[in-house]
Amino acid sequence: MPDTVKIVRFHKTGSPEVLQFDELPLPEPTQGEVRLRVKALGLNRAEVMFRNGQYLEAPIVPAKNGYEASGTIEAVGPGVDPTWIGKTASTVPGLFSLNAHGVYGEVAIVPATALAEYPAQLSYEEGTSIWMQYLTAYGGLIMLGHLKKEDFVLITAASSSVGVAAIEIVKAEGATSIAVTRTAAKKAELLRLGADHVIVSDEEDLVARVKEITAGKGARITFDPIGGKIVEALAAAASKNGIIFEYGALAPEPTPYPLFTALSKFLTIRAYTLFEVAADPIEFPKAKKYIFDHIVAGNFKPLIDKTFPFAEIVEAHRYMESNAQIGKIVVTL
Amino acid sequence: MPDTVKIVRFHKTGSPEVLQFDELPLPEPTQGEVRLRVKALGLNRAEVMFRNGQYLEAPIVPAKNGYEASGTIEAVGPGVDPTWIGKTASTVPGLFSLNAHGVYGEVAIVPATALAEYPAQLSYEEGTSIWMQYLTAYGGLIMLGHLKKEDFVLITAASSSVGVAAIEIVKAEGATSIAVTRTAAKKAELLRLGADHVIVSDEEDLVARVKEITAGKGARITFDPIGGKIVEALAAAASKNGIIFEYGALAPEPTPYPLFTALSKFLTIRAYTLFEVAADPIEFPKAKKYIFDHIVAGNFKPLIDKTFPFAEIVEAHRYMESNAQIGKIVVTL
Repeated sequence: MPDTVKIVRFHKTGSPEVLQFDELPLPEPTQGEVRLRVKALGLNRAEVMFRNGQYLEAPIVPAKNGYEASGTIEAVGPGVDPTWIGKTASTVPGLFSLNAHGVYGEVAIVPATALAEYPAQLSYEEGTSIWMQYLTAYGGLIMLGHLKKEDFVLITAASSSVGVAAIEIVKAEGATSIAVTRTAAKKAELLRLGADHVIVSDEEDLVARVKEITAGKGARITFDPIGGKIVEALAAAASKNGIIFEYGALAPEPTPYPLFTALSKFLTIRAYTLFEVAADPIEFPKAKKYIFDHIVAGNFKPLIDKTFPFAEIVEAHRYMESNAQIGKIVVTL
Repeated sequence: MPDTVKIVRFHKTGSPEVLQFDELPLPEPTQGEVRLRVKALGLNRAEVMFRNGQYLEAPIVPAKNGYEASGTIEAVGPGVDPTWIGKTASTVPGLFSLNAHGVYGEVAIVPATALAEYPAQLSYEEGTSIWMQYLTAYGGLIMLGHLKKEDFVLITAASSSVGVAAIEIVKAEGATSIAVTRTAAKKAELLRLGADHVIVSDEEDLVARVKEITAGKGARITFDPIGGKIVEALAAAASKNGIIFEYGALAPEPTPYPLFTALSKFLTIRAYTLFEVAADPIEFPKAKKYIFDHIVAGNFKPLIDKTFPFAEIVEAHRYMESNAQIGKIVVTL
């Protein structure tokens, strides 16, 4: 057994090529940590932004990266229940910093508190494709949005893994989803995945279509990771007392606050990240159970768009930037 | 008794001079309405914006104006309890349109549902200086903001009548107010009125001062009628999970949405107007009782900056635009 392992790091921020395989000594878990032998990595948009130096957390180079990994626990540090050893689990994002614990590598050192077992019916690829997407959608729609059957939910970037998870949660709760996608390419697939309505924003008037679908009422909940100028249309498409969740910042331009529209409809714009769920000792177990149960019941099916071998992680990042995917991009080891 | 009355109307939007005295037939209340013999008018910023054609409601010229009047009910229409006749009351804004029921005049026709009796200890001038300011502040701070003793509340435009009402409510609840005023001119008066801290925004760094006052925590509640570029500083000065109420649109420039700051602190920006309180059949009576009781107890003292005779209502509007006032501008009849 070699004493070194491959860890993906970047020594400067920039395009996918900055990700490199550093041969490093096998790391040992310290207090409260475990070492996970990684079998699959689920990629996230946040990691592309982190690599570019545009994320909420600034990278400290040489920087690790990656929130989500599945695999087997092979070592535990002091203060960690040793029965973890040999178990299969995946990592929950939001409970560690990417600089400290980024999981891209043959092994990852993570806090034991960031481990969660997932339903045994899932493959490693699926097991690393659940927490970011379902926790994010759960926190916005259920925990903070109090989603009800009669609600219309407007979901932008609907073909992202979080978007698809939001569509599944809306369906599970008996409400009505309106998925927004830029081009017609993904429309049929979004309908197949359970979207009740799909708006192709490059071809259709988003506000007029939402008004039509909702019989003039507007969407009570909007779930948006984009920000920027689309927020004006989202506000115009919102219902009276509607709430717009902003859970990302994909748009390059500044975001306007539509003050007059908001005042006329008493709108709430709520900036939100899954860190709020993950850090809440009461809500987090409830969220995990909700997701676990719906997966076991077959209501939630982690959707994997494409898998790449570990050696091609640069290519996997490039593919994420192409926006061609519907669902999760996974790297296998 | 003359068969005509003076009603203030404007036949085109514009500066204060557009307000004119139109001699009109004595109007009769129809279904659900009363005729109030007006004794005092409380002016509101909304009425300046309405006169300028910049308000949420667009004027239909010749347009009436005015949300708040106090006086004696002298006639009731069908369906209205006749025991109202002879009673003293004031009008509650948010329950009628300015075009339909603007109260600037020797008499005003208003829906009986928009009448509220006020504590007998108040003069007519004071009686028309309560509902807009205390209902607006109550709805944001208490009904939606769930103000708690340990909260720091950042209040912009603090010398406005709503600002002063917010300071009184924060004090009554045992929380800490941070009043923001542009120049040093009003600082001493704001402290005398009960503000715990005053920030002079032209001279001090708002964000740094809030951090200092709150020992780094930031303000959990912000209560802002301005919007525009100050919102970036307000977001920077907010606490984690803070909420910023936008209840007006005084700034001429567009309002930015501070997406990254909001994401990093899970901020809520809530557009709000007192119409939400007034239109809520459960919250509105609670709000009225809260305000009535605090006035009787002497905790809330309607603050009148200056009174003008009815003939000088143009001058009164001009004075409001000068921003020299602290508290309410009242017109007497």
